[in-house]
Amino acid sequence: MAKIADRYYVIDPWNIIEEGFNPAYSAVSESIFSLGNEYMGIRGYFEEGYQGESLIGSYFNGIYESAKAEGSSYKGIVDRTEFMVNAVNWLNLQISVGEETLIFREEAVKEFTRVLNLKTGVLTRSYIWCMKDGRELKLSFERFLSMKDAHLAGQRVTLTPLNFSGELKLKAGIDFTLIHYMVGKNLWDCDAVESGEDWCSILATTVNTKQSVYSVSHFTGNWTSQSELREEKKIAKEFTFFVTQGKETSLTRLVTNMIRKERTEDTFNVKCLEGRQQLLLLDYDKVKADSAAWWEKMWKDSDIVIEGDELNQQGIRYCIFQMHQTYHGADRGTIIGAKGLTGEAYSGNTFWDTETYCLPFYIFNNPEAARHLLEFRYLTLPEAKERAKALDCEGAFYPIATISGRECCTLWQHASLQLQASTAVAYGIRHYELVTKDEEFVFHIGLPILVEVSRMLATRGDWNADHSYYGYYGVMGPDEFQMMVNNNCYTNFMGKKTLLYTLDVLKRYQKKDPAAYDAFVKEYKLTGQECVNWSTLASNMYIPYDPKTKLFEQHEGYFRLPHLDVDAIPVEDFPLYHHWSYDRIYRNDMIKQPDVLMMMLLHNGDFTEEELKNNYEFYEPRCIHESSLSPSVHSILASQLKKHEEAYQFFGFATRMDLDNYNRNTGEGLHTTSIAAAWMNIVYGFGGMRSDQEKLSFCPSIPAAWQGYSFRICYQGDVIQVHIGTEEASFSTLNGSEIEVLIYNQPVQLSAEMTKISIPELWRGR
Amino acid sequence: MAKIADRYYVIDPWNIIEEGFNPAYSAVSESIFSLGNEYMGIRGYFEEGYQGESLIGSYFNGIYESAKAEGSSYKGIVDRTEFMVNAVNWLNLQISVGEETLIFREEAVKEFTRVLNLKTGVLTRSYIWCMKDGRELKLSFERFLSMKDAHLAGQRVTLTPLNFSGELKLKAGIDFTLIHYMVGKNLWDCDAVESGEDWCSILATTVNTKQSVYSVSHFTGNWTSQSELREEKKIAKEFTFFVTQGKETSLTRLVTNMIRKERTEDTFNVKCLEGRQQLLLLDYDKVKADSAAWWEKMWKDSDIVIEGDELNQQGIRYCIFQMHQTYHGADRGTIIGAKGLTGEAYSGNTFWDTETYCLPFYIFNNPEAARHLLEFRYLTLPEAKERAKALDCEGAFYPIATISGRECCTLWQHASLQLQASTAVAYGIRHYELVTKDEEFVFHIGLPILVEVSRMLATRGDWNADHSYYGYYGVMGPDEFQMMVNNNCYTNFMGKKTLLYTLDVLKRYQKKDPAAYDAFVKEYKLTGQECVNWSTLASNMYIPYDPKTKLFEQHEGYFRLPHLDVDAIPVEDFPLYHHWSYDRIYRNDMIKQPDVLMMMLLHNGDFTEEELKNNYEFYEPRCIHESSLSPSVHSILASQLKKHEEAYQFFGFATRMDLDNYNRNTGEGLHTTSIAAAWMNIVYGFGGMRSDQEKLSFCPSIPAAWQGYSFRICYQGDVIQVHIGTEEASFSTLNGSEIEVLIYNQPVQLSAEMTKISIPELWRGR
Repeated sequence: MAKIADRYYVIDPWNIIEEGFNPAYSAVSESIFSLGNEYMGIRGYFEEGYQGESLIGSYFNGIYESAKAEGSSYKGIVDRTEFMVNAVNWLNLQISVGEETLIFREEAVKEFTRVLNLKTGVLTRSYIWCMKDGRELKLSFERFLSMKDAHLAGQRVTLTPLNFSGELKLKAGIDFTLIHYMVGKNLWDCDAVESGEDWCSILATTVNTKQSVYSVSHFTGNWTSQSELREEKKIAKEFTFFVTQGKETSLTRLVTNMIRKERTEDTFNVKCLEGRQQLLLLDYDKVKADSAAWWEKMWKDSDIVIEGDELNQQGIRYCIFQMHQTYHGADRGTIIGAKGLTGEAYSGNTFWDTETYCLPFYIFNNPEAARHLLEFRYLTLPEAKERAKALDCEGAFYPIATISGRECCTLWQHASLQLQASTAVAYGIRHYELVTKDEEFVFHIGLPILVEVSRMLATRGDWNADHSYYGYYGVMGPDEFQMMVNNNCYTNFMGKKTLLYTLDVLKRYQKKDPAAYDAFVKEYKLTGQECVNWSTLASNMYIPYDPKTKLFEQHEGYFRLPHLDVDAIPVEDFPLYHHWSYDRIYRNDMIKQPDVLMMMLLHNGDFTEEELKNNYEFYEPRCIHESSLSPSVHSILASQLKKHEEAYQFFGFATRMDLDNYNRNTGEGLHTTSIAAAWMNIVYGFGGMRSDQEKLSFCPSIPAAWQGYSFRICYQGDVIQVHIGTEEASFSTLNGSEIEVLIYNQPVQLSAEMTKISIPELWRGR
Repeated sequence: MAKIADRYYVIDPWNIIEEGFNPAYSAVSESIFSLGNEYMGIRGYFEEGYQGESLIGSYFNGIYESAKAEGSSYKGIVDRTEFMVNAVNWLNLQISVGEETLIFREEAVKEFTRVLNLKTGVLTRSYIWCMKDGRELKLSFERFLSMKDAHLAGQRVTLTPLNFSGELKLKAGIDFTLIHYMVGKNLWDCDAVESGEDWCSILATTVNTKQSVYSVSHFTGNWTSQSELREEKKIAKEFTFFVTQGKETSLTRLVTNMIRKERTEDTFNVKCLEGRQQLLLLDYDKVKADSAAWWEKMWKDSDIVIEGDELNQQGIRYCIFQMHQTYHGADRGTIIGAKGLTGEAYSGNTFWDTETYCLPFYIFNNPEAARHLLEFRYLTLPEAKERAKALDCEGAFYPIATISGRECCTLWQHASLQLQASTAVAYGIRHYELVTKDEEFVFHIGLPILVEVSRMLATRGDWNADHSYYGYYGVMGPDEFQMMVNNNCYTNFMGKKTLLYTLDVLKRYQKKDPAAYDAFVKEYKLTGQECVNWSTLASNMYIPYDPKTKLFEQHEGYFRLPHLDVDAIPVEDFPLYHHWSYDRIYRNDMIKQPDVLMMMLLHNGDFTEEELKNNYEFYEPRCIHESSLSPSVHSILASQLKKHEEAYQFFGFATRMDLDNYNRNTGEGLHTTSIAAAWMNIVYGFGGMRSDQEKLSFCPSIPAAWQGYSFRICYQGDVIQVHIGTEEASFSTLNGSEIEVLIYNQPVQLSAEMTKISIPELWRGR
């Protein structure tokens, strides 16, 4: 079961470098060299064309298609699913010299190199094209997506003839004929094609969902002539250049992409026109510099430095970079797909990972982004209420997989039985408040969600036979290898915490602003009786626990399940979903990913160290880590238990899961939520940070292999800088705020001055 | 929830009579007037055409089509399903007088009457067709399927002009263009169309499964001329008659239908030719009389007479009639579909109902048919072994729904989690042996099945965490409202019984014929170790039971489930599958159909009356009887508990479920397996017969509403005649055998002499 690295890229602290081209890595590189800016994403494909297999993937956050779901049609089972749709190739380019047209193939090129600069977000690529007749042309490509204005993107190709001079043609276009890979067809209708001397545009609309994308390209360069070519769903300008041996000639393109998510948005055409007019005035280098400046600021606040471990240094920077590419809170309505904007696997859907794994990253790096992430759930509260109705519940039931807010998961056992999306949203609100103290947000955006989720929790559960406790029946917890169980400990505990937090927020709101509270209560038809009921349910929530062993039982009856020695499963049986009969996976005590331990991480401060130790030692050996999120959770808890060696082993591939293609499926897209877990692994794991209680706390340790590491976190308007050495941990605030935190359980006042704390022996990894 | 009769047909002890035509009942009548002879079945449609909706359904036992199953494709989940396919309209007829062609419509006919004669199996229908010009033609139709030679069928139409003489045309054909209703298309390719002066035939083959049906019609009558019409997949002879006012003119058709189930059967064409040649020599009235003679013999052995209850008298005779129509053991390879041969619902698939509900009927009415029914499982043992492999088990796993032996159920939660098809087969073998003492059958046909099912049982189950007991995890018992549970009491108990019975048969075989036993052991690679293991598993099988309350727990944890007051469910919520969210059904202690009580019926003698009483009183109020089989089981047990009133109430609609269309879906086909339950309800329920222990026993009671009732059962080569009066029960053997049975727990020797037993006070219903 050990996962093995497939190392390919050059190790470098600030760049991902590919030297020489190896077609076996072409799909992986398409994912690795993906660019994104939350608004849109583009895979690292070769815009000039590639003779091998390629997923020319170009995606927009929130632009999706829908399809009828096959299967049974009982009430509550999803009959229509939605997926992020492959949209437009706005990088489309064709290069011809005389009769010969370039399509990238290994045999025809030399001196290939590709570099993703993490500091600036610019992707460059260059090689020499060796033509049949011996002519050689050096090509350098550059592309970026603007982090400042997310509609903007740039592309530049620079051509240097090495041993000839003459004419050369560049056909640069906008192509809406892309095939959506997972469906096998194109899903766009073309509404309008327009062009001018140095620009062209297409407005297109998805076939079923009727969302629109408008893409306009503005070209600059010293062409000698130009003409235009139109096909169905495609337009291109053909530029003729005269190139001189040894001299650089460039074609530059600036792009504006606009999306219309709502069919009813009737000012879209005007916006497109304005967007186009503005585009024509922009300067490529200025747009590029603005975006690089955004990255510079980001690194200042969010960088993690690891001393003495180049691999993880590159790995964690790549993770941080990809997190911001996927999402940085520019827009309230955008989401974090399981593969970000880098591929079609998981249909671009967002899962409970968002609030559970990604949100902490944003809370501590970009609190506004964290807030906007939560606002997506506020904006889709109506859909969650619809979903609750379909499931015969009151209130709101958040989808397990979604783009638009509607449930997209067609497997009822997940969509109907997993309550953790709903409790994760509530947890996220609480977590956000704990760290930011942003009570206003919680009162106005959080509370409606909390009330509706509590209503769901109060109707989805049930009292047991003799009415002695309340709990959830027919559920699937985080461990998806226990399909339909009763009183899953995680689900019950998270339900209880949600109810209590909702009541707590209501109480504070009433105290703080009685008038507003009254209006809220009226609007949401909230009764005292309802609140009393929530309180009753919370105090009677069944938490399966054995006081003798201090073990939480994953669900009622789990301890009696047949035991499976997971280490005895033959390697060739993995992944189990492919080799085992579907039902066989669900008939023993094997765990897919942490369940009780997840609960103990999320509400870490609620449990004693002895409880944690006992449960960790009981559950860890039963877990096969089939989820890529699982090892980091175990690593964090192992650190807390001072199992430093074990913690480092679980950390293993966390930062380099995609760079080293550990799961051998990076070609399908990046493991975006695992990237978030890698960040948590360092900050919560080795850094020992905890943010689930009133006070922020740290118990830093350091892996034996490291000389030191440092990280920065945004906290209450300032940035806390943390450096952990082999013997000493240092803390300071970047802007000089005084902040009280706990370090090794002792209150410490942080300030601009460096606070130095000696690392206790037990916390030293070596 | 009370089901209400929709009475339409005339009450008569030996006939089902429709007087006057009501289009609202047309679909129901098509089902009710279905004819079948195990080999083939034909719905009661109007062969001359009907202007309203009609399912022209014509089916052959074992002739099916296949289709790709939609949905998820994990290992063990069925990806191809099979269904009994609508085949050929061999009754096709068109009647024209001058310009006018008859298509049956209420407004154009009078004096409509239709009669199904249960004594002879002949269906007749007559009416007067009033033409637009005032001419009136009386039509009488007759049809039957031969019970003697199942390939044969007959049709006769007799025409009497009431107020005119003249020419009349009858177009009689064979039509393979039928649309399979559930799929919405025709599924036949036509291979050959042939004809002679007075006959025509078509050979056709299914599109995917490549099975064939050959249908040949031979016509007799005094036509003046004839011609022929051919269309794609259809042939018809057009006969011209001169009809005389007041005089009868008939067209008679005898049909031979031949089927080829196996593609490899290469003598089929020869058989068809022979079949056709023989057909041309046959006499219609002789064939009809032979079939009627079959029915006469059947009624002599199998009739049930109820005194003082015309409704149930007609009802139970209709049930007995339909059971024999569906299946009487003519062929080893045929099955009993959930709707028999009367419609397309349930896809013509057979379920565990066959061995659980239908087999007892045949064991006591036609032991050879019972044997052949079990032989279907022997013949499909290879498919059951394949299925076990797909489910990662050894041995044989019998499908929950099948035609060919392969699993056809596309819902994995049923197909992968329900073990009761397998244990029902084993139970059926044991039950058959208990009654018939046919040890040879068990050694040669039963044992291979028993061994392979035991192997499955030994690998599908598991030991619990501390290895203190064995049981089945991730199963669904008979109560399908508990979807995926552990240690379902029924499943574990039936598993234990199967293992023990297998070991018992092996032991007896070894003793009786050591050489044959050794050969068997060698062929099946059976080791002593394997048998020891089965014995260990059986003795360690976990049977959830509370000795204090004497309650069996339906499954581990059932007693703690939230309680649902099923009587409080609003009527409009039924059927729950349509109105409740799919998962909601599975989250409480509501029961769909008997589970623990089913176990206590099947192995009745293993439980004390106190146990039965306690469990009945606990589980019955939790059951909503969503299965049509449920009330009869409760009725039988209520009788045993001397709850005579309750027993009669549960009996309620058992015999008339279809005649009175209680479920309002008889139009889709008859509830064939419920028909079997009606028989059990009288013989096992009121008759108090038990056949699950070594000795046959009776504890007869009589419903207050009845004056008396009698039934006959085949038993060990003779027929036991039982009559229950209001005060006395009488027993005798038809052919004079001496048979010892238990009556009210006392041994009694039966013979040709009437044995009279006074009914104890407690057993009298009034």
